[in-house]
Amino acid sequence: MKAEIITIGDEILIGQIVDTNSAWLGQQLNPLGWEITRITTISDTIDEITSAVDTALNRSDLVIMTGGLGPTKDDVTKSALCTYFNTELVFDEATYVHVEKLFRHFKREVSEVNRNQAYIPANAKALFNRFGTAPGMWFKTDRGILVSLPGVPYEMKCIIEDEVIPRIQSMSSDVFEHRTIVVSGVPESIISERIASVENSLNHNLKIAYLPHYNVVRVRITGRGTVRQEVEDQLDKAKQQIVDIMDEHVVALTDERIEHIIGKLLHERKQTASFAESCTGGYVAHLVTSIPGCSAYFPGSVVTYSYENKTDVLGVDADILWNKGAVSQEVVEKMATSIRIKNNTDYGLAISGIAGPGGGTDEKPVGTVWMAVSDQHSVISKLYTLRGDRSQNIERSANLALELLRKKILKLI
Amino acid sequence: MKAEIITIGDEILIGQIVDTNSAWLGQQLNPLGWEITRITTISDTIDEITSAVDTALNRSDLVIMTGGLGPTKDDVTKSALCTYFNTELVFDEATYVHVEKLFRHFKREVSEVNRNQAYIPANAKALFNRFGTAPGMWFKTDRGILVSLPGVPYEMKCIIEDEVIPRIQSMSSDVFEHRTIVVSGVPESIISERIASVENSLNHNLKIAYLPHYNVVRVRITGRGTVRQEVEDQLDKAKQQIVDIMDEHVVALTDERIEHIIGKLLHERKQTASFAESCTGGYVAHLVTSIPGCSAYFPGSVVTYSYENKTDVLGVDADILWNKGAVSQEVVEKMATSIRIKNNTDYGLAISGIAGPGGGTDEKPVGTVWMAVSDQHSVISKLYTLRGDRSQNIERSANLALELLRKKILKLI
Repeated sequence: MKAEIITIGDEILIGQIVDTNSAWLGQQLNPLGWEITRITTISDTIDEITSAVDTALNRSDLVIMTGGLGPTKDDVTKSALCTYFNTELVFDEATYVHVEKLFRHFKREVSEVNRNQAYIPANAKALFNRFGTAPGMWFKTDRGILVSLPGVPYEMKCIIEDEVIPRIQSMSSDVFEHRTIVVSGVPESIISERIASVENSLNHNLKIAYLPHYNVVRVRITGRGTVRQEVEDQLDKAKQQIVDIMDEHVVALTDERIEHIIGKLLHERKQTASFAESCTGGYVAHLVTSIPGCSAYFPGSVVTYSYENKTDVLGVDADILWNKGAVSQEVVEKMATSIRIKNNTDYGLAISGIAGPGGGTDEKPVGTVWMAVSDQHSVISKLYTLRGDRSQNIERSANLALELLRKKILKLI
Repeated sequence: MKAEIITIGDEILIGQIVDTNSAWLGQQLNPLGWEITRITTISDTIDEITSAVDTALNRSDLVIMTGGLGPTKDDVTKSALCTYFNTELVFDEATYVHVEKLFRHFKREVSEVNRNQAYIPANAKALFNRFGTAPGMWFKTDRGILVSLPGVPYEMKCIIEDEVIPRIQSMSSDVFEHRTIVVSGVPESIISERIASVENSLNHNLKIAYLPHYNVVRVRITGRGTVRQEVEDQLDKAKQQIVDIMDEHVVALTDERIEHIIGKLLHERKQTASFAESCTGGYVAHLVTSIPGCSAYFPGSVVTYSYENKTDVLGVDADILWNKGAVSQEVVEKMATSIRIKNNTDYGLAISGIAGPGGGTDEKPVGTVWMAVSDQHSVISKLYTLRGDRSQNIERSANLALELLRKKILKLI
């Protein structure tokens, strides 16, 4: 069963915001046997909306639209749908009761503009929006199903979970599944050469894709079919063949991010880690604390940005800082050891580098990053020369540092 | 002049990655007078690519495609373009010299797979890719221009900057500009009522949009035209009218994020700030250090996640922690004061809350967040009850905390 997403909003087209709704929708729909075949972002105009809806309904069984349902003049999705279905807006009592309740909660009067939120096209079924005043809308057409949802991410997500998934989950009997093998330290071209025999002998319903991201390549096998067990067996067989070939370069067998992997490893071992960050500026701590339950293995960390702070908080020798520079092996090793002892954790991880755009020299150009991991037995450090912009250097340094911690936990270094 | 973006990749359709390239492209092209009218994400298949290219070239003057240029089998963009233009791949010597050089740098042999990267469709002009082996490609057709670029963000960006912008910047004489007014603490429906007179009297070439995000609404005015000065005058006049009406609720007149605003305020005043984060887990420090030059006003900060760490690092009284809980006014006020003194900064900002999904109680449900800001004269605290998921609660808490800091710097609280 094929689905399409239509995202409405000039703010996406001009780059004022990034569309994160579509990726989330893909993650929700695939496991239910729905394949997203296209995502289209269009402007908030009646012509664009009616033409995109018509084209999408001609191609797909399910069309999910987001955006354009706010109370202000720039939001025209409801008018566009009335035009498209040749119908008019009618008052939906249940929605109005909810809008009134929300406004009472915030101690505000319901204005005319907000009352309009309770009007929906006559052929729509309102989908309850726990978190906002704009209901979702469900349209059953003679071609496929059209769902219109607000663009605000948490409102869109709650309507999908509460109202849309229960209605669509048994509609598709297709199987559309993925397996991911995360390979570290080998470029995609080399991986593809090494697993060519597997790739060439795959059934036609299986497909391999390579997704390089910084130091890892995610090798994804996608399988399509109608019998779940059959597709899963095929996928697992191909996955195992690739794992056998890539061997020690395989760092994960899920699509999990490194912070998830670290969290699991520490949790299983009842161990703890803390961080001393300079150029990553708190991004490592942010990644690790994005995982629920991280308090079991993460008591706290520091960001030491200035020389003085490195000395005051971590006892880094001022002479070493001035002679060797903050971005040096001596400094990160001291930082990693100090934070481990100070926060009384099993591991200490430290990063110091030049994220850019300023601060680079001939000897230490932008992208020079030292990192170190310490446990009670030893401290291991590593130097990288990255070549991205500031945000890429921060993100990549954080990922490489967590990868260094992973190897230390597994005693691979 | 109209442009479209086509993003190729199953990894986007299944939600394995979020497409951030398109937003960046919008930001680059708008100021050059190019309006992005549509973004389409499609699967890596020859049929999908040829059909999307054909439709886009029928509608637009410029089509920018990203993705599908890697060395592996799943990348079929070049084959699709050969099919579409009825041509074949030819060897591009300059590209090959660059591929060889990159491989020598990494001390690897150029394999057959990598050598293929130097083949491009006969009707394409290669666009130099400093950072990778896949060149961009420029196609001049009888309808419009088609540009094909790698999907890896930093490779795509460097080709746009080095090769594409110089070629397209003088092609459009259209003016397509925006003004943004950031309004805090007033819902979009109320703003739209209050500025209705401005909105109703706008020239037809101007349009207002409302973009709510957590506690702020970005009111954007977009102007189109052919005479730059005329459009800019119209935009500035409408902007000033809205600013006069919304008055003290206007927090910024650019599309800048709060961390930029904080950075400028501190820089101008030669002041400094440090943070003590619990539930935000380093996200505030990450936002602030994402700005180049932040070392002028940010010496460092701490993430204190556990009770013990709050006591050891910030001297929070253990009795208060156990009696009042870590998420309490007393605790955040102590954290804000301690970090200010400890790091010797003008301001100390602290956040402690329950990000979820676990940890909530009847008295303090998930989303309960206390924050405090301290200077040498006083400490001000504030309680919020948020209602998002873990990542939303972290992001929103960090933004609200920086907003609290902004008000303190401006002596508004």
